[in-house]
Amino acid sequence: MRQVVMYKPGDVRVEQRPDPTIVEPADAIIRLAATCICGSDLWPYRGAEPVDHQVMGHEYVGVVEAVGSEVRTVKVGDFVVGSFWASDNTCEICRAGYQAYCVHRVLMGTIGTQAELARVPLADGTLVATPGRPDPELIPSLMAASDVLGTGWFAAVAAEAGPGKTVAVVGDGAVGLLGVLAARQLGAERIIAFSRHADRQALAREFGATDIVTERGDAGVERIKELTGGLGAHSVIEAVGTQEAMMQAIHSARPGGHVGFVGVSHDVAIPGDVLFMSGVHLHGGPAPVRRFLPELIRLIWDRTIDPGKVFDLTLPLDRAAEGYQAMDQRAATKVLLTL
Amino acid sequence: MRQVVMYKPGDVRVEQRPDPTIVEPADAIIRLAATCICGSDLWPYRGAEPVDHQVMGHEYVGVVEAVGSEVRTVKVGDFVVGSFWASDNTCEICRAGYQAYCVHRVLMGTIGTQAELARVPLADGTLVATPGRPDPELIPSLMAASDVLGTGWFAAVAAEAGPGKTVAVVGDGAVGLLGVLAARQLGAERIIAFSRHADRQALAREFGATDIVTERGDAGVERIKELTGGLGAHSVIEAVGTQEAMMQAIHSARPGGHVGFVGVSHDVAIPGDVLFMSGVHLHGGPAPVRRFLPELIRLIWDRTIDPGKVFDLTLPLDRAAEGYQAMDQRAATKVLLTL
Repeated sequence: MRQVVMYKPGDVRVEQRPDPTIVEPADAIIRLAATCICGSDLWPYRGAEPVDHQVMGHEYVGVVEAVGSEVRTVKVGDFVVGSFWASDNTCEICRAGYQAYCVHRVLMGTIGTQAELARVPLADGTLVATPGRPDPELIPSLMAASDVLGTGWFAAVAAEAGPGKTVAVVGDGAVGLLGVLAARQLGAERIIAFSRHADRQALAREFGATDIVTERGDAGVERIKELTGGLGAHSVIEAVGTQEAMMQAIHSARPGGHVGFVGVSHDVAIPGDVLFMSGVHLHGGPAPVRRFLPELIRLIWDRTIDPGKVFDLTLPLDRAAEGYQAMDQRAATKVLLTL
Repeated sequence: MRQVVMYKPGDVRVEQRPDPTIVEPADAIIRLAATCICGSDLWPYRGAEPVDHQVMGHEYVGVVEAVGSEVRTVKVGDFVVGSFWASDNTCEICRAGYQAYCVHRVLMGTIGTQAELARVPLADGTLVATPGRPDPELIPSLMAASDVLGTGWFAAVAAEAGPGKTVAVVGDGAVGLLGVLAARQLGAERIIAFSRHADRQALAREFGATDIVTERGDAGVERIKELTGGLGAHSVIEAVGTQEAMMQAIHSARPGGHVGFVGVSHDVAIPGDVLFMSGVHLHGGPAPVRRFLPELIRLIWDRTIDPGKVFDLTLPLDRAAEGYQAMDQRAATKVLLTL
């Protein structure tokens, strides 16, 4: 099969690799309908994380091609969506809704789903079948559910977005934009998106943003305070992962407010005294996407939400390198790879 | 009147100062029945915070001696308990339960309640009257409610201690010990106290601790993991304020668990990647004691709880310097000053 491999920073290739096979009785093999490039894939691409001939990709939708002897909840021919963490969905941590920390978790990025086929461990706990074969126009949205929508959703839940709340969103990448969509679905009254890019501002508004703030850092915080009677937002989503974004998020929230952070932290250190005096709730990390998948699939299936709009560039898998380049250069927000 | 003044680190004196008077129409003047020395008073005492002829003390119970023209909810002669933040209890932040961040808040430490009399701003929003004149043996417990119990209680609430939960408590000072008491009152199933001191271990057990762990740091975390099937505690209270304590707290919690931190942070920096990967909820800061005061007073009045037991040294106000010395040298956990 063909599979994307990052040789070193900036060097992405599509290679022939052996087809995956069932290794454990809980495994499934899926044939991908689509895959995509994640903002977090840019960290190694830019040399901010080590990389050496690494298979890439952790987002996936597709059709089950084979199952191990223990698999019960999905069958050959099902169209499935899964999370970037494989999870048993039965351990105490999974049952508490934290499948990204399942005691048996397997990171799909180590398997690499930017490929024609992928082995999915713990298939019963990881994969959720759609009600039937999806119409082709639903594929991008189902693809988004695998990570970027599930992550934005988790951020909005962690930020306790809901009715009567003002939600600020730091980061106008795909996750931030889908955080806007999630906050709207969760009933937020006012959604303020930080964004300087006209196209992303437009999508943020389409997803439900009521206000756009172009300032960043302290000036951005000041704008949020102005828009919230001096108090700050009830809920803030942090979807970047830098020190500036984290501090902007903490300072944008009111005392007793909630910051949901899902940007993969790089060189972030939160000063204890600042957090202490802020009085905010802070919660985040790798999203337990599996918790939300049944609901997200339903919303997509019913055409209630259209998160697939975050994909602004679609390329065949063979041209993955172009996709990485486009996201690195910010020519694209999020790249869908077709098979 | 007599009032405690810290001239410089290690130098605490009791001086004659003018009696306070009503300044704002929302003020009350109280005659203190007791006051006490806070763990946070040790930071300037030890030179870890700047101090220069500072009036001291922010905990207080006493009898209302005078009220301003706007005061409605307390009257002359009432026995009252108040928080270390004066708050209006009507602003949007107060109504959300975050009175320590009231938009009109006044820090009682700037007024200094280690004194015979104290001016309490925003009396209606700050003071809670007891059902009547308390029996003398209730005074220490009511005193505790003013800060140290309210703070431990907030930590337990922030850590979401409750039925079915395993709660770990980092810090065996007065706040940590009362965090144990709070966790028990909130219905926690198992309460693990970190402590190396026999007397504090005994009080922790009396307040409801089911297990004592003497190890600290990584070894302490390992013990918590052993005691919780490898998962970590559901809830962790951090009541110290150091880097080691904060990291011990974060690592002692399971993914999706809750850390409530109330130790005043000193030189703490939380690595973003560690917090990200931990999956914990983090919430803390100065406790909104006012939120809990009516309930705490009721529990004390009904003799359901006896938080006054944390006072292991009682001295007259004139001997405040001895009290500071005893707490600094860990000869006492918490010092009550009588008037």
